[in-house]
Amino acid sequence: MTTVPSIRRSGPLFALCMVLASCLPAVAQQAPASAGPPDPKLVEDLVAAYRILADHGLLDGWGHVSVRHDKDPNRYLMARGMSAEMVTAKDIIEFDLDSRPVDTHGLPISALFTERYIHGEIYKMRPDVVAVVHTHAPSLIPFGDTKVPLKPMYHRAAFIAFGIPVFEIRERAGMTDMLIRNAALGHDLAEALGDHPAILMRGHGAAITAPTLQRVVARTIFLSLDATLQADAMRMGTPITYLDIEEARKIEAREGHGLARTWEGWKQKVMSKP
Amino acid sequence: MTTVPSIRRSGPLFALCMVLASCLPAVAQQAPASAGPPDPKLVEDLVAAYRILADHGLLDGWGHVSVRHDKDPNRYLMARGMSAEMVTAKDIIEFDLDSRPVDTHGLPISALFTERYIHGEIYKMRPDVVAVVHTHAPSLIPFGDTKVPLKPMYHRAAFIAFGIPVFEIRERAGMTDMLIRNAALGHDLAEALGDHPAILMRGHGAAITAPTLQRVVARTIFLSLDATLQADAMRMGTPITYLDIEEARKIEAREGHGLARTWEGWKQKVMSKP
Amino acid sequence: MTTVPSIRRSGPLFALCMVLASCLPAVAQQAPASAGPPDPKLVEDLVAAYRILADHGLLDGWGHVSVRHDKDPNRYLMARGMSAEMVTAKDIIEFDLDSRPVDTHGLPISALFTERYIHGEIYKMRPDVVAVVHTHAPSLIPFGDTKVPLKPMYHRAAFIAFGIPVFEIRERAGMTDMLIRNAALGHDLAEALGDHPAILMRGHGAAITAPTLQRVVARTIFLSLDATLQADAMRMGTPITYLDIEEARKIEAREGHGLARTWEGWKQKVMSKP
Amino acid sequence: MTTVPSIRRSGPLFALCMVLASCLPAVAQQAPASAGPPDPKLVEDLVAAYRILADHGLLDGWGHVSVRHDKDPNRYLMARGMSAEMVTAKDIIEFDLDSRPVDTHGLPISALFTERYIHGEIYKMRPDVVAVVHTHAPSLIPFGDTKVPLKPMYHRAAFIAFGIPVFEIRERAGMTDMLIRNAALGHDLAEALGDHPAILMRGHGAAITAPTLQRVVARTIFLSLDATLQADAMRMGTPITYLDIEEARKIEAREGHGLARTWEGWKQKVMSKP
Repeated sequence: MTTVPSIRRSGPLFALCMVLASCLPAVAQQAPASAGPPDPKLVEDLVAAYRILADHGLLDGWGHVSVRHDKDPNRYLMARGMSAEMVTAKDIIEFDLDSRPVDTHGLPISALFTERYIHGEIYKMRPDVVAVVHTHAPSLIPFGDTKVPLKPMYHRAAFIAFGIPVFEIRERAGMTDMLIRNAALGHDLAEALGDHPAILMRGHGAAITAPTLQRVVARTIFLSLDATLQADAMRMGTPITYLDIEEARKIEAREGHGLARTWEGWKQKVMSKP
Repeated sequence: MTTVPSIRRSGPLFALCMVLASCLPAVAQQAPASAGPPDPKLVEDLVAAYRILADHGLLDGWGHVSVRHDKDPNRYLMARGMSAEMVTAKDIIEFDLDSRPVDTHGLPISALFTERYIHGEIYKMRPDVVAVVHTHAPSLIPFGDTKVPLKPMYHRAAFIAFGIPVFEIRERAGMTDMLIRNAALGHDLAEALGDHPAILMRGHGAAITAPTLQRVVARTIFLSLDATLQADAMRMGTPITYLDIEEARKIEAREGHGLARTWEGWKQKVMSKP
Repeated sequence: MTTVPSIRRSGPLFALCMVLASCLPAVAQQAPASAGPPDPKLVEDLVAAYRILADHGLLDGWGHVSVRHDKDPNRYLMARGMSAEMVTAKDIIEFDLDSRPVDTHGLPISALFTERYIHGEIYKMRPDVVAVVHTHAPSLIPFGDTKVPLKPMYHRAAFIAFGIPVFEIRERAGMTDMLIRNAALGHDLAEALGDHPAILMRGHGAAITAPTLQRVVARTIFLSLDATLQADAMRMGTPITYLDIEEARKIEAREGHGLARTWEGWKQKVMSKP
Repeated sequence: MTTVPSIRRSGPLFALCMVLASCLPAVAQQAPASAGPPDPKLVEDLVAAYRILADHGLLDGWGHVSVRHDKDPNRYLMARGMSAEMVTAKDIIEFDLDSRPVDTHGLPISALFTERYIHGEIYKMRPDVVAVVHTHAPSLIPFGDTKVPLKPMYHRAAFIAFGIPVFEIRERAGMTDMLIRNAALGHDLAEALGDHPAILMRGHGAAITAPTLQRVVARTIFLSLDATLQADAMRMGTPITYLDIEEARKIEAREGHGLARTWEGWKQKVMSKP
């Protein structure tokens, strides 16, 4: 598994390295080998994931969801750069964990999501993670920009009890355009994520992980809703009883059964659109 | 009518009892007898109730609504475990008040809503209740997690004047996965509900009752809206005039006439969807 | 023009009078004469008004909009009791200013809106008013229940500068079911309205007036929006610059031109629905 | 390029001038020459811009978007006065920078947007500006009415770091109907805008500029969203980390690539409507 040393991502030397590195792919690198065609059902669910998150206002032309290839944990699947509500099966592209495309379907590299490194670097560090979302969900922004920690308000968002850190890109790379533009920044983000289920990105959004594709979609929806509810409850000016970590553990241990039902409803709604 | 002693729902002895009890149905219990086919109009309205509450964002793959069988008050009708917006007449299942299905239509027990005991146990304790909703309505969560009592802001939510208690599952069963997984917890919830029209469930949602199916849907919608309005009014920092209990009594005494009109509109909207 | 003495609407004597009065119509009163068929364009716009307000979440099965008959200022037009989004031209009924129907189209009196007296009594007192809305608009409720006066935040809601009083039904009739159930209460409300463009009703909603049907719809929409914006601005904790009454006068003097454009857009949206 | 001296816009003398000026066009002025037919793709995108902003609730029958003519920077394109969601290619009209129409398609001057001077006067002063929006976006109103400056909460709204001033029309013209009714007021607004990307208008709305049509639409959407998020974050009662101006510069330098994807999604949604 490739690792990137955790140096400070700034300064003229670093900039030079990045420029050189960005030239390398076209010159020296071969496209990685394919793990073979993924399960069509998995691709169908990935397409649905894009549309469900778009329907909930959590993805648009920015933000993305990925899933590990079912035939090889060293490959992941993700849409080409496009608006989430328009994704179809033929837009799904296979990447290796360095976030290099296996086959771009004839598209230039610039037609891919710049921030795909969020996904590849998390998959490298976290073998337990099967699916990743990067979102700009509005309700999360105020929590990323303040020092107020997100807390679990109710059982659908119980996983928040495991801790949601905040990534401050300035600490790693100084003043940037805020994007996770390369593997080094992706590595920094994955490192800050650690063993947590999700991480907020100050002034930007969040990255969310889960052991299944359906759960990463649900976690994104309920993380976003929980933020709204917590902000509402905080304004009431009285103490709040959050879920206990023990409650969260018991809920997470059983998660999935009810979700399959909800997934069916979400999916039908978005896939029946013309 | 079966009653369950109100002991503390925790400890090793209790856990053992629960394990044994959970094995019993498959071994020793017969399916309860049917009360016969319910009025098709009642089933149609129950289907509409699922879809209306889904359309209002108050049910999804979690949460449910039930109604007593029109031919037998010891039976109730409820959908199999599924997303509310997809419910049709053939998904409606008959239960006895111990929440045992009369006929699962060939489905395994795991395909039913786990928390059906909320409904059965309330029907046992409250002969006046004809319909029950269990919802995770977002606006109610902050009130369940704080000590701020819900109050009636306007005449559509007048029934709140009769008091909305909060159920703290930790007091009954310690640290759990928050679900009303069995008759014992359902009994505890019904006991805490007492004679009130509804009860909030800390970190979870609410259970709402009414003397008719249409009213339980309306109460769920307006309980949820009232919570939003009360939170807004509290932030204004000045005293609030809530409805008086006498006003609430007069409103409730007449409730139903205008509701029939509204029901017609709500129902047409959701039943005309493809 | 019939007027009703402004006595206190409670006590046993008053109750007896009301009971007797409620029997009178069926026994002694003749249906009022029709002013003849109204302009079909006016009826079409009234139907659109119901649907536009429903589309904005400001009317449902409760609440209504009326307009004076174009051939006789002593008659007004209003839908039978029904959900606003379902109103069609054949549901429009003609009333005299005592709110007696000219012809119920064969429907019983109970199929009419109970609170039609809001409209009739305002038309009696205010010859300048051509259209009236009664709404339960959620954002208005917190202002009706507190002592915080509504203020004009922006030019679309400039008319608020003319003052929006609050009607406290308890001061007139003690503890009631909150409804404007008869001409006496309608008279009280109209009296409290005075020369103002609208009045909030504590724990209930509002009545809004305007010199045209299009403007009463726009006023309802922007009164409701202004309430949301004012609540938001108040939470910022700094002084707010509201519109000056002189600004409001200049805006109102020109109102109508731009509204015709907006009306066309609103109407097309709701009338093209199946 | 015509300029208007920046005198105080009030008093009887000024009123007389305005009356005389308003008579002039019909008497003495010729319609300006056309720059020829604009690129059909530009017109199509302008139509989409109206509908996208309507779909986001940021334009209705009031408010407008314009773009400079692709063949002549001294001409701009804008819809006739109408509801944004109904605009089609044949409704687009060409104006010179004094906001005189080249050809009204047979419509009277009163059928054009009164406030078109916002656009013409900004184009005169700001050669870098290619597109302008005037909106009544609700979330911006509380910021225009208080002294709370808008700040950039996240990278999609980074341009806010360049400063968003507030235009107080009272300082220029005393008590008015709040509208930018003529070139003089448009000039005042453009002067207050200066080099900033946008300006709030107290009690009214905002004017937003950008170097492309797609970006002015995106800026309008994210300016509005940022205002909501900032208000939410301010209520948390802890310090907020806003984007640094250096971060904003880097983001703006790259802006456009991701936007093309999002634009495709927005456009498909609104143009596929019947």
